[in-house]
Amino acid sequence: MTGNVLVVHGGGPTPVMNASLYGVIMESRKHPEIGCVYGALGGMEGIFKERFVNLSQADDSVLQKLLETPGTAIGSSRYPVTEEDYEKTPEIMKKYNIRYILPNGGNGTMDTCGRIYQACVKEGYGDLRVVGIPKTIDNDLAVTDHTPGYGSAARYMAASVQEVGADVRSLPIHVCVMEALGRNAGWITAASSLARKKKDDAPHLIYLPERPFDEEQFLKDVKELYDRLGGVVVVVSEGLKKADGTPIVDPIFKTERAVYYGDVSAHLANLVIRRLGIKARSEKPGLCGRASIAWQSPVDREEAALAGAEALKAALEGHTGVMVGFKRREGREYGIDTFLVPIEQVMMVEKTMPDEFISPEGNDVTAAFTDWCRPLIGPELRDFVDFQAGNEGEE
Amino acid sequence: MTGNVLVVHGGGPTPVMNASLYGVIMESRKHPEIGCVYGALGGMEGIFKERFVNLSQADDSVLQKLLETPGTAIGSSRYPVTEEDYEKTPEIMKKYNIRYILPNGGNGTMDTCGRIYQACVKEGYGDLRVVGIPKTIDNDLAVTDHTPGYGSAARYMAASVQEVGADVRSLPIHVCVMEALGRNAGWITAASSLARKKKDDAPHLIYLPERPFDEEQFLKDVKELYDRLGGVVVVVSEGLKKADGTPIVDPIFKTERAVYYGDVSAHLANLVIRRLGIKARSEKPGLCGRASIAWQSPVDREEAALAGAEALKAALEGHTGVMVGFKRREGREYGIDTFLVPIEQVMMVEKTMPDEFISPEGNDVTAAFTDWCRPLIGPELRDFVDFQAGNEGEE
Repeated sequence: MTGNVLVVHGGGPTPVMNASLYGVIMESRKHPEIGCVYGALGGMEGIFKERFVNLSQADDSVLQKLLETPGTAIGSSRYPVTEEDYEKTPEIMKKYNIRYILPNGGNGTMDTCGRIYQACVKEGYGDLRVVGIPKTIDNDLAVTDHTPGYGSAARYMAASVQEVGADVRSLPIHVCVMEALGRNAGWITAASSLARKKKDDAPHLIYLPERPFDEEQFLKDVKELYDRLGGVVVVVSEGLKKADGTPIVDPIFKTERAVYYGDVSAHLANLVIRRLGIKARSEKPGLCGRASIAWQSPVDREEAALAGAEALKAALEGHTGVMVGFKRREGREYGIDTFLVPIEQVMMVEKTMPDEFISPEGNDVTAAFTDWCRPLIGPELRDFVDFQAGNEGEE
Repeated sequence: MTGNVLVVHGGGPTPVMNASLYGVIMESRKHPEIGCVYGALGGMEGIFKERFVNLSQADDSVLQKLLETPGTAIGSSRYPVTEEDYEKTPEIMKKYNIRYILPNGGNGTMDTCGRIYQACVKEGYGDLRVVGIPKTIDNDLAVTDHTPGYGSAARYMAASVQEVGADVRSLPIHVCVMEALGRNAGWITAASSLARKKKDDAPHLIYLPERPFDEEQFLKDVKELYDRLGGVVVVVSEGLKKADGTPIVDPIFKTERAVYYGDVSAHLANLVIRRLGIKARSEKPGLCGRASIAWQSPVDREEAALAGAEALKAALEGHTGVMVGFKRREGREYGIDTFLVPIEQVMMVEKTMPDEFISPEGNDVTAAFTDWCRPLIGPELRDFVDFQAGNEGEE
């Protein structure tokens, strides 16, 4: 059945969304029954406004650059879809002969594509197939071992903490509190542990949103390390909560749609200054952590491209209402296989860090976590020279 | 005259301090009159505590890694030197046969080394020579065209803003305020301008500490851009000041030694949320911006190594009380020559951005600045793909 493919991006970008797009386009070339791959420009809104770009006509040199372009090259949105929008879709799908929709986004995007499918079936345009491509730096999707986007966000966090750790070790005069993305799930925060190569390497403390945050215990932990090391690097999740489940930072502003909170890292750095009288600073790389190409994980990039290719294959095989998932292969060597999972199954649960990945004290991760995470971030991080450690030259 | 070399690091690290150290060690191999190169461990304090590492015995593989190690591999400090310390130095210099001291640090470090020299002369150990290696990401040293460390901090800022810009352009729903290092001089903030490749690329606004910051004008600038583009990236110096010279953020804590201020980026993001009702976020990469090896500028790295080598050569030639400076060659092709400048001349002035580098409106830089800065950051930044711009595929 000849037809065209439509890729639509939704929600916040990852460093490898464009790699998934690349995977779809490359796979499409192997299937003569595919006319072209369209991209919906500007996210879901692009569908209803019929803003499509024919990606099959893009030069190979452009496609290669896609792999190293952060954000999304076709654009994303958080557009609130209306009933009227849905009603228009069967006509639009027919007009562009779109038979395969591959949404690459979060819950909202998947849900919207499901409803587009239903609207099309209702209007007798039943040959449409919807296969989701997973995407989130947060790694909070159920069923799949991990999500495209996470490995790169994890590599960024590990590498940045390693670099800041080298700086702080060089001039050990302060406590540095670094804030990691991931409001409800600590996966990215936890990945900072992969910065460690030697004893007393940063990060010295890791606080995850999966555990209630106790300021007194935090100050005790910090003081002890500061007295011993001088320079301390603490990594905290942007979503740290108190025992009662409320954020540890006060809301600074409320609108109808959202509540804005202060920065967790700044709050904790101030706490260290005020309560311990120790110099402290906060670093909040924020969006840098989901847009970094320098620290893109090659493993993540390849898996993201694979997810795109597999989604297209599944759609061509007749699947619909499913998403591509990753299963880790058994054995010592890291590898994944893909499988298909009903979209609803993925969407119902927000996957947080399991207990066996969190240290009993709640201020670090376990070796089980680092073993699980290490292959996802790609090549080993650099070895830094430290003559102060006494193992590189003769004192 | 056979003797040993001592390198001492002081103040905050840069991504290429270790490259200067590398330059000294490599140069030392060409001079049989040099016994060995010592590093003072842990900064100035290392001298008085006689904590020296013999760097001439380090393996070549270790030295190669030095080039890609952020911070300082021998350690730095902000140690307050006492009279007693100075009195001990002639004895220590004699004991280790140190004849060449190469301080790589800021004002304090250079000044201390000058006083060590004087203490030695007083005690009849007059053959000591002190030649400074310049170092500061802030680029605020007088006389020299620019400083080792700046090119890398500049490259980091340009590349990070380019990446965040791609993210924000993909999902243009908020104003993103990024804070750059450099409290009194806007050189690093200004370098974010090199992120731009096409019209309307980030950064959309740049606010430097050289100009008084007007919150009302800022809000007006932001609103106009938000209405037109949706996503706005603003880069601000951590040291923005009001017309009366006080910081735009309130002090959050005072100790005897220091006053701690809130984050400028968070303050301005909150202002946008509160006053304009527009979603805004702050990113403060902070120390990441002076420790990044991924965005280390190869030009900066080479120049830092050169500065180290030239400092040693100058000391061997009999110079003392001088620092290595960079002079830009005439002509289209970028290149520098080194020269020697009396240390006092460099130390007296904090070099801020000249008027011709700042736009008349005070919210951007000029082409004269980008022309000046571009060669310092090394290879051109990546081209990102943007199908929304309509020039990569067929719409």
